[in-house]
Amino acid sequence: MKKIAIIVHGGAGPDSPFIRTHIKGYREGLKNSVEAAYLILRENGKAVDAVEAAIKVLENNTLFNAGRGSAINAKGEIEMDACIMDGASKKSGAVSIIKNVKNPISVAKAVMLNTNYKYLGAHGALDFAKKINMELEPDSYFIAEHQFDEYTKIKMEAFDSNGELAEEEINQRMHGTVGAVALDQEGNIAAGTSTGGAPYCKEGRISDSSMIGIGTYANNQTCAVSCTGDGEYLMEGVIAHSISSVMAYKNRGVAAACKEVIKIENKGVQGDMGVIAIDSKGNIAIEFNCDRMHRAWKKGNEKTVTKIYKD
Amino acid sequence: MKKIAIIVHGGAGPDSPFIRTHIKGYREGLKNSVEAAYLILRENGKAVDAVEAAIKVLENNTLFNAGRGSAINAKGEIEMDACIMDGASKKSGAVSIIKNVKNPISVAKAVMLNTNYKYLGAHGALDFAKKINMELEPDSYFIAEHQFDEYTKIKMEAFDSNGELAEEEINQRMHGTVGAVALDQEGNIAAGTSTGGAPYCKEGRISDSSMIGIGTYANNQTCAVSCTGDGEYLMEGVIAHSISSVMAYKNRGVAAACKEVIKIENKGVQGDMGVIAIDSKGNIAIEFNCDRMHRAWKKGNEKTVTKIYKD
Repeated sequence: MKKIAIIVHGGAGPDSPFIRTHIKGYREGLKNSVEAAYLILRENGKAVDAVEAAIKVLENNTLFNAGRGSAINAKGEIEMDACIMDGASKKSGAVSIIKNVKNPISVAKAVMLNTNYKYLGAHGALDFAKKINMELEPDSYFIAEHQFDEYTKIKMEAFDSNGELAEEEINQRMHGTVGAVALDQEGNIAAGTSTGGAPYCKEGRISDSSMIGIGTYANNQTCAVSCTGDGEYLMEGVIAHSISSVMAYKNRGVAAACKEVIKIENKGVQGDMGVIAIDSKGNIAIEFNCDRMHRAWKKGNEKTVTKIYKD
Repeated sequence: MKKIAIIVHGGAGPDSPFIRTHIKGYREGLKNSVEAAYLILRENGKAVDAVEAAIKVLENNTLFNAGRGSAINAKGEIEMDACIMDGASKKSGAVSIIKNVKNPISVAKAVMLNTNYKYLGAHGALDFAKKINMELEPDSYFIAEHQFDEYTKIKMEAFDSNGELAEEEINQRMHGTVGAVALDQEGNIAAGTSTGGAPYCKEGRISDSSMIGIGTYANNQTCAVSCTGDGEYLMEGVIAHSISSVMAYKNRGVAAACKEVIKIENKGVQGDMGVIAIDSKGNIAIEFNCDRMHRAWKKGNEKTVTKIYKD
């Protein structure tokens, strides 16, 4: 069997009692995600399809902030963003602030494969999802108990303090964006990212996850990258494309490029950042600047590795 | 007076009878845009404010596809995208698929200055614009005669042909996205881009113009860039950030970097691409791969130069 590999992440940021309480569930979720992708890669499936499969598992798991279990915004609603990119063709698809679709990553893939567009938002994205018969769910499906508790807590704090919490204040206590990068037997790589956004964020806030070059990027000549953390800082640094550019223009390997962008170029940045990356030779890289990054990977016949905190 | 400079563009793409008929109006519009920005720069105003002023002039001019005069989508509606970035702080603001605001670039600037977000879309963006009392206009304000003719023509073609034109087909006969880059007396640079999207495009289609690193990017250490052309190809090449990366990692000047990205890296790409760029020393660059790019600039005390076709 030729070299295959899959890495997934389930968000990066500060540690929390909630994470410690649910650590077993997180590890299981990450492992299931890796294994869903691995099955596809082993059967000579495409990297893009493996990335989609890995992300769907995490979107369907309430512990992660994507799909079911997404963060609830200040309006009490859930809006989701997702993006997928194929490193062989450099084609991509993305959706932002989409509601009610069970798997935003699959809508993003359909945008890539079945339209001449790359990026659809809001009602237009939902309309497209309906037209191609994507699975829909009612609002209640997406709301997880811990996300509702978080929403209520922030709302109460707002009520207790100044009457109203500034909607513009970002609260990102519960980072849990998910993402995956994969290498298939043909030597093609792909990346994808999906998120439920930031708790109590303003309606219409678009995250880095859906943005090509920021949260997601793939190019067979360099690498496939998926990012997580404080989205607004990832935008400022154009993180995914910076890693690719360091490889392309400074001739660095994937691990060195991730380290250079996260630990040197963005040293001192006040936001949390985490990246997973892979190149077409099967070299993998994981880099983050915070307490923990939910992550798991499997290379070739090696066992699946699952980690939450620093080594 | 220290070195100041402003460049604006009004879209790049194929030539057309409409452009030839209205060439005087286009030249006047570009000149007015440059001069609005220049007044600000001369009075020691900020590059970001000069960029906003230049773009507002073009948004208010029906000849350009941004603000009033925006392309009409397949649903018969106008949705607009805009982005602005400050090279000194690398802070940015953007809005996508926003309706009814007279000047989307000003909402983008307000997102940058008055929120902790960088990117708002659809209803959330409009809601924010209303909260901060941005000037609104009714739907009818935005619809220009030539855009309505274009919309009707495509719709009739659809009716005459197959009953319905595939909404996914991009029609970009009327590229007219606008953008500006500027250098102020403090040595800071900024970039901004605003668009009405593509004629008869799908509702919810988000353009490159609103995407940091794709259509717009600014960083005092490298350059400020605004792009125009076939958005989906600009996304694939992550054009604005690629130019910055070539400067940062390959130590090229701004003109050489623009040429390398447009004429070498993206040689043979089937989409139209045009870029304007400036660095903090006042070097400017304009590069495009198609028949024409509406553009104008003014450096220091030199006269304003206005061009439509190749030299």
